[in-house]
Formats: sequence, C-alpha cells, structure tokens
Amino acid sequence: MWQLAQHSAGICVRFVTSAKAISARWRLWNQNLAMVHMPATGVSGLDLYIKDPLRPKNKQYHWIGLGQPEKSPENEAELVGGLDGQPHEFILYLPLYNGVEKVEIGVNAEAEIEKAPARTTKPIVMYGTSILHGGCASRSGMSYPAIIGRWVDQPIINLGFSGNGQAEPEMAELLAELDPAVYLLDYCPNVNANGIRKRTEPFVQILRNAHPDTPIVLVENITYPKHLFVQSARDNTNEKNMELHSAYNRLRQAGVKHLLYIPGERLLGDDGEGTVDGIHPTDVGFMRMAQTIGPIVEALL
Amino acid sequence: MWQLAQHSAGICVRFVTSAKAISARWRLWNQNLAMVHMPATGVSGLDLYIKDPLRPKNKQYHWIGLGQPEKSPENEAELVGGLDGQPHEFILYLPLYNGVEKVEIGVNAEAEIEKAPARTTKPIVMYGTSILHGGCASRSGMSYPAIIGRWVDQPIINLGFSGNGQAEPEMAELLAELDPAVYLLDYCPNVNANGIRKRTEPFVQILRNAHPDTPIVLVENITYPKHLFVQSARDNTNEKNMELHSAYNRLRQAGVKHLLYIPGERLLGDDGEGTVDGIHPTDVGFMRMAQTIGPIVEALL
Repeated sequence: MWQLAQHSAGICVRFVTSAKAISARWRLWNQNLAMVHMPATGVSGLDLYIKDPLRPKNKQYHWIGLGQPEKSPENEAELVGGLDGQPHEFILYLPLYNGVEKVEIGVNAEAEIEKAPARTTKPIVMYGTSILHGGCASRSGMSYPAIIGRWVDQPIINLGFSGNGQAEPEMAELLAELDPAVYLLDYCPNVNANGIRKRTEPFVQILRNAHPDTPIVLVENITYPKHLFVQSARDNTNEKNMELHSAYNRLRQAGVKHLLYIPGERLLGDDGEGTVDGIHPTDVGFMRMAQTIGPIVEALL
Repeated sequence: MWQLAQHSAGICVRFVTSAKAISARWRLWNQNLAMVHMPATGVSGLDLYIKDPLRPKNKQYHWIGLGQPEKSPENEAELVGGLDGQPHEFILYLPLYNGVEKVEIGVNAEAEIEKAPARTTKPIVMYGTSILHGGCASRSGMSYPAIIGRWVDQPIINLGFSGNGQAEPEMAELLAELDPAVYLLDYCPNVNANGIRKRTEPFVQILRNAHPDTPIVLVENITYPKHLFVQSARDNTNEKNMELHSAYNRLRQAGVKHLLYIPGERLLGDDGEGTVDGIHPTDVGFMRMAQTIGPIVEALL
C-alpha cells in the first residue's frame, strides 16, 4: 500500500509557456518500466496536453506530446516541437505505475515559463482500485480520472490503489480529512461481497459525518467482458453489486443525502472490447467509463 | 521487410470446441516481447474471441480471453475457463509484432475440438504501414484490420509493414496475384508527397489491370493529434493528402472504376486522444478508424 502510494498516478503539473519546443527530464523510482499488459509509456512516461480555451468545453485540453521512458532511472525527451511561440497553458501528467524523484521541464532559451494560474475550485477525490489507478492506460493522461479532470477542468485526487483499495474505515478517516467537491468511490473490484456489505455503510457514514453536503458517488463493479459467457464471473459481480445496492438503499433510508449510484453494466460498453485482460480497461474502456461517469460528476459540481 | 513479413499480424486461427476451458502454448520467434509504446500483450500475445450468432451482426465476435506473454520463446496460458461446455466457434489472433513458430491449443479432456467451417468468401487485402500492421494495439485483435474482419465476418489479409509499406510497384505486382473482394491501400504515412505523386497511379493501375472490377480503396494519411498546434506537421500531411487526391482524380479521369477515397481528417476523432505517441493509434484510435473504414469496406462486399 505504501509503495502503491508512491506512484505518481493522478499527479499533474500545470504551467504556461510561450516555448516553441518543450522537453522533460525525469527520474523514476522503480526499475520496472512496463507491465505485460500495459506499455512503458503509461507505466513510466510523461504525458503532455495543451489548453485551448477556444475549443468546446470538454475538448479544451488537447493531447500534444509524450515522454517515452527508455530506461531507469533517468530519461530525457522532447515532448513537443514546432509550436507557434505564443503563450499556452499546459498540463503534464506524471507516470501511473512508477514514481518520480524529480521532473525538470526544459524550454527553448528565448521562451518564458511560469506556473499556471492557481485553481480555486475544490478537488474531486476518487478512491478505488487498479482500474481507477490507471491500469492499463497507454498514456498517463488516459486513466478515467485524468480524462474526467480535463473535461471538467478541475483538480482530481486519484487515490486508486491496485488490489488494495479495500474500503477500510481507516482509509475513510483519511479521505474525510480532505474537503473535496465530490467523493467518488470505486472499490468493488477489490472487495468481496461480504466486505462490500460490511464496509460500505461505515465508509460512507465517516465521509458524511465529516461533510454533510458533499456528494458521494458509489460505483458498481464494472461488468467484465467475460460475463456474457462465463457464469461464475457473472454471478460473482452480480453478488457484489447487489450488496452495494442494498447498502446504498440502507444509507438512503437512514437519511443520507447527496448519495449517487452508478450501475456497472454499461461502463465498458457491450462489445467486450473495453479491457486488455478482461478486467483492466484499455484506452477504449477508460474513454467509455469517462463518458458515463464524467457527466454525472460534472452535474454534481 | 522480410523480417516484418515474419510477424504474424493479421493471422488468426478459427476453431469450434465444446471445451469449458481453453489454453494455449505458443513459441515466439523474437526475444523482444514489447515495445516502449505497445504492451507485450499486443506485440507477442494471443487474443481469443468467441462467436455468438445470436448477437447483432457487428458484435457476433465477443472478446473472451488473452494469452499474456511472460517470456521468450515459449509461453503457456489458460485463455478462458468457466464456459458452458456447449460447442462455440472461436477465433484466435496471433501476435502483431512478433512471429510464432507454433501455437498449440489445449482443451479439457472430455471436450472435442475441430476446425471451424471453411470460409467461402474472398479475403479483403489491406496494405500499408505500422498503423495497419497493428501498432500500438493492446491486444492482437485490436488492430483496425482485425476489428473490421470481425465486424464483416470475412478473412482479412493484413499486409502492414511498419515503416516499409512504401507503395513500390513490386509490391503491387505481388498484391495483384491475390484475388480479393477489396483492396485497401493505406500507405501514405510511409511515403513522402513526391512518392505518393509518383507511385499511386502505377500501383493502382497494376491492381486494376489484373482485376478490372475489384474495388480499390485509397486511404489518406490520418490527421495526427499535433496538427492542430504544430503547423509543420499539418503542412506535411496536407501536402501528402493533396498528392493522393490529385492521383485519385487523375485515375478517375483515366477511366478507373470502383475506386474509393477515404479522407484522413476524421479517422482518429477530433479530441487528440486516438494515439499513444502522436502517430500510432491506441485501441481508441483503432476503434475510431474501424468505425469509419469498416462501413465503407462492408458496403463494397
């Protein structure tokens, strides 16, 4: 858990520069650059977006450059060249399944670079599993929390812990210390049905007691592609989701307000193509999850 | 080129079995299991789909299992378990950027396994670059030729050669020896504007002389995500596409029939999210390319 918390998933750096070319040098913590089902670019790479306020609201951040990790610990790469030399705002995502000791951003000598204007909105706190953590996005900007963060243009705190986001009350206490605009809880894949039954109400109540009016979103276990043909997998997920829904109903009956519920059935689409391994979304799966979850989060802001 | 031709991209194996569990053992040719921007699962893995004739036509093949490569040369993995034991047809895709010496499919002892019914339709021949080759799909079934092949349920011959699909007349002669339902030519990213001007008409004419009525589809260079902000990249692609379009017009004026033209501008969508590195599609990009190119190919069958 401590090691997973060192991963820079969800951390991004915002800056303004009139550079025509932007480079980066970054020092990784872990030797493993990639996973079998996730490329090094997503695990250990940098991912750069440019902001264009003239584009439609959910397309203002446009992908512009990648820092490909070739070795560990230190890498250097030009992220983009050939820009117009006018000031633009950028957002740089740090690696999803690695950590960084430091990141240096380089611009051509004539160019200025400064911090982007500080955000005044509260963050959206997302808590969950490897899926929320960002496995298996091709780039660090393609986890679903990162996509939603660009669409709503607000800070996201990504607290996805692969295999270890298990809805412990201690974690709820820590989350309650934050003061977010929305809590999004997507832990079901890491918890069995019994755990979901036991832990959901205390988890939500700890957050609710600390923040009487902050919306809390419960996300069902996604329907995995195999469910259509593998009954044991289908039954397992259905059992979990029935427990989550029962807990949701009990919470509502207990008077908990501002509680949202997102069914898992359509999150990855219905063609089986949303994951790499049956569990972890590819960019296709993350884009589809963002398309369902994003508008709900946006409506709560 | 010879080495690239050893890659098993586009090759798939079709079989029928009533197995409850399906495993595979496969022997790879190359040591490199992955690329920096493409996971080992796509480069060197196996990808299994199950056919369900009761589903909508373009969703009859549903993803069901992955063979994750852990080492080279030999791997073994259970692709799927927990099936219902009824006979189903399957399609197994071989690695995209590796080759296989052999693939063995294992089923539980009681189960039968046999070849799937032979296809009677002509193949669709696709010729092009690393993009067509399948870089950078997360699984070998997610290249755009593979996706389209499932949607139309016809054999695809994938002749994508990374960096080396350059529209040489010798290649046209070889393609002309085949007798496909459709030729799809997607070579622009590998050829400069001058080459496109010089080679497009001879290439098409060689195919047309051998096959007077076979539809030939010309695909423009895709619009890369950086084009919105990097003028040199935009100009380069525009120049190529203008040459392709001029060649297309000259061919039409010369009386060449059954010639189709697909603009590159919308192939990856307009949000910049379709590639991993600015050039090679992720699953998102491939899905979007298939959504545009697939219906056009289908209309020609």
